[in-house]
Amino acid sequence: MSALDFTHDAAAHSWVASASGSDFPIQSLPFAVFRRAGEAFRGGAAIGDQILDLAALAKSGAVHDVLAQQALAACTQPALNDYFALGPPAWRALRHALFVLLRSDAAPATVAAVRACLVPQADAQYTLPTRIGNYTDFYTSYFHADNIGRLFSAANDVVPANFHWVPLAYHGRASSVVISGTAVRRPLGQAKPPDAAQPRLGPCAMLDYEIELGLFVGTGNALGTPVPLRDSEQHLFGICLLNDWSARDIQGWEMQPLGPFQAKNFSTSISPWIVTMDALAPYRTPWSRDAKWPQPLVYLDTPANREQGAIDIQLETWLESGPRRARGAGPVRIAKTSFRHQHWTAAQMLAHHTVGGCNLLAGDLLGSGTISGPTAGEAGAMMELTQAGRTPLRFDRGDGEIEQRAFLADGDAVIFRGWCEKPGFARIGFGECRGEVLPALPLAAVGVGG
Amino acid sequence: MSALDFTHDAAAHSWVASASGSDFPIQSLPFAVFRRAGEAFRGGAAIGDQILDLAALAKSGAVHDVLAQQALAACTQPALNDYFALGPPAWRALRHALFVLLRSDAAPATVAAVRACLVPQADAQYTLPTRIGNYTDFYTSYFHADNIGRLFSAANDVVPANFHWVPLAYHGRASSVVISGTAVRRPLGQAKPPDAAQPRLGPCAMLDYEIELGLFVGTGNALGTPVPLRDSEQHLFGICLLNDWSARDIQGWEMQPLGPFQAKNFSTSISPWIVTMDALAPYRTPWSRDAKWPQPLVYLDTPANREQGAIDIQLETWLESGPRRARGAGPVRIAKTSFRHQHWTAAQMLAHHTVGGCNLLAGDLLGSGTISGPTAGEAGAMMELTQAGRTPLRFDRGDGEIEQRAFLADGDAVIFRGWCEKPGFARIGFGECRGEVLPALPLAAVGVGG
Repeated sequence: MSALDFTHDAAAHSWVASASGSDFPIQSLPFAVFRRAGEAFRGGAAIGDQILDLAALAKSGAVHDVLAQQALAACTQPALNDYFALGPPAWRALRHALFVLLRSDAAPATVAAVRACLVPQADAQYTLPTRIGNYTDFYTSYFHADNIGRLFSAANDVVPANFHWVPLAYHGRASSVVISGTAVRRPLGQAKPPDAAQPRLGPCAMLDYEIELGLFVGTGNALGTPVPLRDSEQHLFGICLLNDWSARDIQGWEMQPLGPFQAKNFSTSISPWIVTMDALAPYRTPWSRDAKWPQPLVYLDTPANREQGAIDIQLETWLESGPRRARGAGPVRIAKTSFRHQHWTAAQMLAHHTVGGCNLLAGDLLGSGTISGPTAGEAGAMMELTQAGRTPLRFDRGDGEIEQRAFLADGDAVIFRGWCEKPGFARIGFGECRGEVLPALPLAAVGVGG
Repeated sequence: MSALDFTHDAAAHSWVASASGSDFPIQSLPFAVFRRAGEAFRGGAAIGDQILDLAALAKSGAVHDVLAQQALAACTQPALNDYFALGPPAWRALRHALFVLLRSDAAPATVAAVRACLVPQADAQYTLPTRIGNYTDFYTSYFHADNIGRLFSAANDVVPANFHWVPLAYHGRASSVVISGTAVRRPLGQAKPPDAAQPRLGPCAMLDYEIELGLFVGTGNALGTPVPLRDSEQHLFGICLLNDWSARDIQGWEMQPLGPFQAKNFSTSISPWIVTMDALAPYRTPWSRDAKWPQPLVYLDTPANREQGAIDIQLETWLESGPRRARGAGPVRIAKTSFRHQHWTAAQMLAHHTVGGCNLLAGDLLGSGTISGPTAGEAGAMMELTQAGRTPLRFDRGDGEIEQRAFLADGDAVIFRGWCEKPGFARIGFGECRGEVLPALPLAAVGVGG
C-alpha cells in the first residue's frame, strides 16, 4: 500500500486559489488526458478548477528531478499507458514534483512558469486516459448480489456459493468504454418477456446503470506469471468512477450460460480524472470478512490486506431527467454508498485475475463491480432501487408534478460523484461521470422492415 | 460474399515450385506477420513453403496498381490492423497483384524481382498478425452444446432455449492470445470437486482444448452503428485456426453466473496464417436451420446468408504426447469435423455482435465457438471425446504400450489442421495451430507456502 508522506499534509495549500475546498486540492493531483478544441490530446493534472498541462510543463523546464522528468515526458503523449508502465517510483517522483511546484511556498518565478501551464477545466475536452487494451468487470458487492438474487428467488441464501471464495469477474468490452459526457445510445437487442412464446428484437425496455469504480492497471505482468497478493497493489495506478450501463431485458435472455454480452457492450462510461493510489493513502481502512461467511483461501489473504485493504470512497448517484433539465431544475440524488462495503479488495481482485497466469497490461481497466451498501438507499443500480421496476422512483419533474422511473428514460442523464474524507486529512473528490440516454435507432438500422 | 474470379482458377500454377499440392497454392495467398531472427516483424503472404516478404516487395517496385501499392504499404508494418482497415477493394487489389506476380506466366524479370523477396517458411518466426484490440468467443455448435449438456443432465433437450435464437458469445481475453508454437502453462486456479466441502487452489486437473476458427474483423464499425446482416461479411478479412484452451475444473466452479473467466484467460492460441474470405469463396455452401428448431429472427436472416452463408472448412485435431515425441512417433489424430455444421454463420455472428451498437475494430478477433459435428469422432474438445474423462482416449505411446488421456497431460502438444477442397477447385490449407502444455508453477508463485 502507498505510504503517507508530505503530499498528504492537510495543512498544505496551493497558490492556485480554487484548489482548497474543491474536488481537486493539492493533496489529490489526479491525472487525465485533455485538450482544448483543435489541440492535440496530452496528459494533465487537476488542481482546483484548472488543469496543469503536463506537455507544457515538460517544455517549461520547471521539473528538475530526473525520474520526475522521465515520468513527465511520458505524460506528454495522447494516452498514459507508457507513464503507467514506468511504475510506482516514477509515479511518486512526479507527484512529489507537482506538489512542490503547486504548493503555496513556491518561488515567484516557479509560480509564473507553472501558471503559464494552466488550462481552465471549463475549456477542456477529455478523452480516455489510456488505450484500454483489456477491460474486466468484477462482481464483488455482497449487497448487490443479495439485492439482485432476492428479485428472482425466495430462497434464504440467494448469493451464489462461489461468491464468497472467488472474486467473480467477466471480461468486458474494451472498445466501447467511453469518456464521461459521451451520450449513450439505447441499444437494440433480443429479449424474451416471461410470458412470450419467443424473443423479439427491439429497443431495450429496461435500461439501467451500475455505479462502480474503475481501477487502472499501472504496471502489467508477463503471461504465465501471477502477481501474488502481497505485491498486487503495486500494479494499480489509480481509480476513477465507472458506469456499467446495463440492458436488463437483454441480459435476462442472453446471460445463461456465458454471462453478459450485448447487455453491456453498447457503452461503459468512465470519469476523466484518475485519482492515484498514492492520493488515496489516507482513506485506507481495514478489510475483514464477517465470520458468518467463509474466509478467503490463503492466496487471497495477507495481514496487509486485512489491515489496510479497503478504501472508504463515498459515492452518490444522481438522475437528471429531460424535463428537469429543460426547467433548469438539476439532478436529484437517488442513492449513496461507499466502496468500503465491498466483499473483496482491489488488491484481491488483481491477485485473483492473475492467479492462472493471465497477463495484465499497463492501462488495462478493471471495474470494481456494482457498489451497493447494506441499506435500501445504498443500492448501486436502478434494478435494485425500483425492485426490478415494481416500485418506481418518484421525483419532482421541476414544476411540482411527479415523474416516475422504473428504468431509465430517453433524455435521462445519470451522474456519479465520489469523494474521500477523513478527520485530519483533506477531502478529495473524483469529479463526475455523466452520460445521457439517446433514443434507440429504428429497426431499419439492422435491416428490418427497411 | 466474395465473388469467384481468376484467382480461383484451379488450372493456375505458380513458378514457386512447392506451391501446387501444398497448403498454400497460388489460389490461397494467406497473410501472416513474420521475421527471421533478429529482423523486424512485417507482413508476408504464403506461397508453397515460402513467404513472400511484403516489405521487400513494397521496396521492389514490382507492384504497379495504385490501390495494391497502398495495401502493400500497410502490410510492411509489424501488425496488419491498418491493412485490414483499408477494406475489401484494397484487399482484392493486393490479392490480384500478388496472384499475377506469382503465376507461372510471369515475365522472367518479374520472377527474378519477386524471387528476391521470398523467405523460406522454415526460417521464419511468427507473431500475432494484428494488435488484437478485442477478442470475442462465440458458442455456435449445436452438437458441442448438446454433447456438453448431456454430460451433466439426463433431460431430453439439454441445449439452452436461447441457443437457437441468439448467436451466444462472451468477451474473451485479448492480452493472452498467443501465436501457434507458444507453450501454454497449465494454470493454477480455484476448483471445487463435487464432494468437497470447499474449493482448493491448485494446478488445473482437467486441462482441455477446444477446436475453433478465428475470424478476423477487417473494417470496423462506429460505436452505436450496427452492421446489418446484408453487409456484415464485408467486415470480415479472413479466418485462422484457434485453440480455446479450457480449464474445465476451474470453469465448473467459477462459471455461474458470469461465464468463463480464469478457465480461459491463461492462453488462446491462433495459427499464423489468415486465409482470406476471398480465398474461401469457392468453398461456400448453403446454410439452413433444421425445421425442428426455431428459425432466426429477421435481422439474422437474409437470402444470401441461406444461399452461401456456411463454409466447408474441414478440421482435424491431433495429439502428440511427450512419450510419442521422445520416440519420434509423431502425433495421433483424435478427431475430425467441419465448420459447415455450425448453427450460426460468421455473418450472423458479426451482425448480432453489433446489433446493440457495439463497435468492432479492425484487427479484432472472433472465435467461432467450439466446432463439433454430429458423430462421436467429430467432437471439438477432449471433454466431449472422453465423456468428461469417464472414457479416456487410448493410443500407442510409440513403443507398443498404451497411453491414456482423460484430459491433457504436461508435455502434450495439441495440433489443429484445417483445409478446404471441392471438385473443380484447388485444395487450400490453413497450416497448423500448435501448443504444448507446460507444467503448472508451484504454489509459491502465488504466495502460498513460500
